[in-house]
This record gives sequence, structure tokens and C-alpha cells, in this order.
Amino acid sequence: MEVRYFKYDKPFQLESGAVLPRLTVAYHTYGQQRSDNVLWVCHALTANSDVNDWWPHTVEPGRFLDPERYFIVCANILGSHYGTTGPLSSQPDGLPYYTDFPFVTIRDIARVNLLLADHLGIQSVRALIGSSIGGFQALEMALTKPGFAERLVLIATSACSRPWATAINESQRMAIRADQTFGEPNEAAGKEGMSVARSIGLLSYRGSLAYNATQQDPDNTLRRTDRRAITYQQYQGEKLTRRFDAYSYYTLTEAFDSHNVGRGRGGMEQALSTIDAETLLIGITSDIIMPVEELIFLYRHIPRARIHLLSSDFGHDGFLVEADKLNAILKPFIDSNITEI
Amino acid sequence: MEVRYFKYDKPFQLESGAVLPRLTVAYHTYGQQRSDNVLWVCHALTANSDVNDWWPHTVEPGRFLDPERYFIVCANILGSHYGTTGPLSSQPDGLPYYTDFPFVTIRDIARVNLLLADHLGIQSVRALIGSSIGGFQALEMALTKPGFAERLVLIATSACSRPWATAINESQRMAIRADQTFGEPNEAAGKEGMSVARSIGLLSYRGSLAYNATQQDPDNTLRRTDRRAITYQQYQGEKLTRRFDAYSYYTLTEAFDSHNVGRGRGGMEQALSTIDAETLLIGITSDIIMPVEELIFLYRHIPRARIHLLSSDFGHDGFLVEADKLNAILKPFIDSNITEI
Repeated sequence: MEVRYFKYDKPFQLESGAVLPRLTVAYHTYGQQRSDNVLWVCHALTANSDVNDWWPHTVEPGRFLDPERYFIVCANILGSHYGTTGPLSSQPDGLPYYTDFPFVTIRDIARVNLLLADHLGIQSVRALIGSSIGGFQALEMALTKPGFAERLVLIATSACSRPWATAINESQRMAIRADQTFGEPNEAAGKEGMSVARSIGLLSYRGSLAYNATQQDPDNTLRRTDRRAITYQQYQGEKLTRRFDAYSYYTLTEAFDSHNVGRGRGGMEQALSTIDAETLLIGITSDIIMPVEELIFLYRHIPRARIHLLSSDFGHDGFLVEADKLNAILKPFIDSNITEI
Repeated sequence: MEVRYFKYDKPFQLESGAVLPRLTVAYHTYGQQRSDNVLWVCHALTANSDVNDWWPHTVEPGRFLDPERYFIVCANILGSHYGTTGPLSSQPDGLPYYTDFPFVTIRDIARVNLLLADHLGIQSVRALIGSSIGGFQALEMALTKPGFAERLVLIATSACSRPWATAINESQRMAIRADQTFGEPNEAAGKEGMSVARSIGLLSYRGSLAYNATQQDPDNTLRRTDRRAITYQQYQGEKLTRRFDAYSYYTLTEAFDSHNVGRGRGGMEQALSTIDAETLLIGITSDIIMPVEELIFLYRHIPRARIHLLSSDFGHDGFLVEADKLNAILKPFIDSNITEI
């Protein structure tokens, strides 16, 4: 499936008050659209609109994102690197935004996703699915447009960015700012800082169980630099620099930290109590950035919610790795009639 | 108490084979020395030899480091910034080492500590006490000189640097290397990178419980940069730059990662089985860098060991914060006769 583009040629006012003069939204769809078969997927931090690319073994016949039964949609998020308006997009004067790209919130991202839904003639979806900051968006879409989601699937996510997550993100931004090239008017600027940032993020996405299980050296001889845990951090940092830019990365970590479903809605508990979708919550037992307590908090306050704790040693990244376990939980939930749930 | 200096004017061969032509060891003592009343304290990563300075409410009459009863010794560690030979020390040609300072291991640090003990006429100590990489040193001192420690107190520490801890340390080193000034021949070089490194370290020393309890914003209005979790990271990073240098910091994180009590001793289990000291292990329940599993591993393999899990929300830093709880556990252990233990 090729990426497609939705052009929105009106000004779009952000939550901060800043205005983007126009928008482009990159998106993918899979399957044939009917009125009752839409599954909307929201992607996480550095992913793109091609769900097939970043979430292996999900968009397949017989899996929970079955393209033979469902019409699956995913939009690249506002501020990202993969085709939707972001820091590398051109301003009206023709020059890219870079650090002048405005502060974007999860609510802004959710509203842009909903603009695309309108454009595609989608007034409601069978299921709205998000993991990590994909879950942030799904929550905000459900709250922004009541009735939009019949089913809501929230995986490894939370009602707000807690101080712990914000501190992790700020260390990442500090790393990017410390790269003296960040701010220079080119796409490669700040990439060494972003590489450090990514290695910090990875610590929080994996955690001790995953590192100790997969990065153990074969013996205990004295090594200064050629240790698996060392080269893994370097490799993962460098790998992101080949596919992403520091300006978009910085923008998205700030969007992450903007997340709070309770803002202007009488607090998180009050906001969550208005969610009308049949909700399935999945927490990953070893997740340290979105610990299961966050899912339990959502469970306590969303009226029609059930919760499943998925046992995995892969931490937050479990949502990408444990496709089989996820499928076993999600497929019956998505396939069933609401009356059967 | 003033810092004192022990000058060792002979070449000192490091585990790597490199040779330091001479050593200086900065140290503090408290109380009056007798043959049977020595308590030896090993300090953690960026601390110094003045225990009174970095471990509040421990070196006081009536506490476990009672200077009216005991002679307390602490050496600043090899490679550090506080008076002992390190990257800012002068080479034979008069110029500081900076990045030319050799790779130093925990074993090297332990052997330097033992040189100071010899110099002070100390053949054995009533108790050898270390937290974090202080515990690494204490383990290595006990293994290097059997009979040296009558009692061994190991707090929030482990038998080796696991892949998880090494990955955290490597992200910190990546942050320092990404600072383009690192390598310049002056003490201020690399300090912005070190500031990022410190903020990464802090995440692992505190963890989610501590951050969420202490860094919560007062309300949920939209904030881009003035959030407590954000300014806290910046403040803690900047604070270290006023008292430490990036060369020493880099050296000590490499020493951290060198730690493995089993190297050349038939493995960790075999090495630990030879420890002859009466051993008290303390794990902190919320510690994510040295999880209680590490203390349980030590407990399983050290012959005369007991273990205490200290309940605290402060994570690894609990060893610095929970002086009262620690005192209640450590004082009876240190004061009792071995036959009573």
C-alpha cells in the first residue's frame, strides 16, 4: 500500500494559539471501506502511517487488523517526519520551520487525525486502537468526538504524561540541545544529540529484564568498550539518525509531555468518566515508562472498561514484540458484536 | 575534619596493564584509631572521602558510624575528582591526563584503597561498608584481601555491572562524547554533555515512584517548559557541573562497568562463596538500577549472609535519604560482637 496525502488548505489553530496556515496529512489504508468496518490505528512516537511496516504480523488475514474484513486507517501524526506537516515542512515563505515549528499537543494531533476521518467520510469507527502515545491520541480522539469510537483499545498508555515520563523526555531534549549543531538550518542538524536521546528512550522502552536477557556478554573477561550493552546503545541511537530528524523528534517529545486528558475538562477522573466506548486496556507487566498502574488508573475511571495485564519481559516495547499475545486478546474483542462483549 | 593525602611514590600497575607512575590518595578519618575499632566506608560514584558531607546523619555519636567509638576511614577513589589521582592529575611531563587517563577498574580502586589501609597500619577492619559502587569496592576489597573485613555491609549493590546498568552508563558516555568540547585540554571541557549524563543517571537513581511523588506540577494547565520534572532534570545536571569534571565522570562510569567479582575467579558464584566476612545485605525495594534481585543473588552465594529489604520510594538514592532506617539496621550489626550476630 502506497502512502496517500490529504491536503487541508485552511488555517489550523493549535491549542497554544499558534496557527498553521495549511496542513498535509500522510496516511495509509488497508482493505475496503464500508460504513461499519473501520479500524483506526494511532501510531507511537517515531513510527509512520504504514502499520504493516512498524507493527509486524498485525495487518494480516486472520489477525486483529484483518484487511479482508476491515478498512484500516492510520495517519502519520502532526509534527512527525513521515509526510504530515512537521518541522521539515515549508513555511509560507518557502523555508522549512526547523526550530520555529510551533508547540504541538496530543490534542492537536488528535484533531488533525479527526480532520482526516472527516475527509474520508468516517463518522465513527468499529475500533480505535493506540499504543503508547498512540493511546494518548486515541484517548483524545474519543474525548474530542464522543460517539466516534465504538470500541477503544488502549495499550501501554496513560491518562497523562507523569513527571517520571516527562523527566525521561527532558533528558532526551537536553541531549539534543547539547548538540551544538541543533538549530542549524538543515535536516542533519542535531542528529548526534538525537542519537543520545534515542539511547535514553530505549532504556525506558525496554528495562532491566529485557537488557539482562538479551545483552549479556558471552563471558566475563575484562572489556572496556566491546560489550553488547554498549554497542547496542550506540547502534540503536545511530539507527534512528538514518530515518528521522532531530527537529521532529524534539517536537514529538514535547507533544508527549503535553498529554493530560483532564486539562480543561475538570480533571482526569472527570474526563475519563465521559468515555462512551467499550474499552479494552492492556498493560505490560515489565513496562517501566507506562507501568500497569497507569492502565489500572484508566480502568478505575473509564465506565465500560476491562483490563488485561500482558506478561512480557520486553517492557514498553512489548506492544511491538508480542504480536501473538496481543492478537489473542484483541481479535475476539474487535470481531465480536458489541452486544456479545 | 580536613582531607589528608597519602603519597605512594612507586609505580602502580592497573588491571589493564597500564602503569600509573605514582599515586596520591585523598582520605578522611573520624575518631581515634585502635586496633579493633576501624570502620571502612567506600563511597559511590561522584562522592568524596568526607563521609560527613555526602552521607548525612551517619557520622555522629549514637549512629552506626559513631566517631566516639570507632575510627572511620574513607578514601576518595582512584579516577575521581576529589584529590586522589585521576584524569585531572598531572602526568610525568606536567600536563594533566584528561582523556589519556588509563582505564581503571573497580579492582584497581579496591587495591588503592588497600594501599591506604596498609599505610595507616590497618590489617583488618571491624566493618567494611559500601553502597552502590561503594559496595562494588567493598566486595573487591574483601575478595582481594581475605580476613580484612570482619563484617561486610553491602547496600544497593551487585556482584557485577549487568547489561542494564552498562546500557545506562553507555548512554551517559554517549552524552559526554556528543559534547564537541570533550577532549579539549581544560577542566571545563564536556560539561554540557556531563550535565545530560547526570540527568540520565538521576532517572535510574530515583525511578518513577520518587519522580511522581516529588515532581508533580500543582495543576494541569498546559505548560511547555516550566514543569517541575523538566526544571529538575536541568537543575540536577547543571548542579554536578559546578563540582565535578567530565573526564573523571567518564572514567568512573567505565570503572562501574568493569565490575565483575567473578572475573578470573571461576565465576561470580565461586568468588562469592569465598567471602569470609559476616555479611549484611540491604536492598531497596524501589531501586531500578540495583534491583533487590541483585542483593538476593549475593545472599544466595555469600556463605555468612543475611539480607534486609528496605522499603523506600526513593529508589537507589534511598541509601542516601533513609539514614534513620539504615541506622536501625546497621548499628546493631556493627556494634554487636561477632559471636552475638
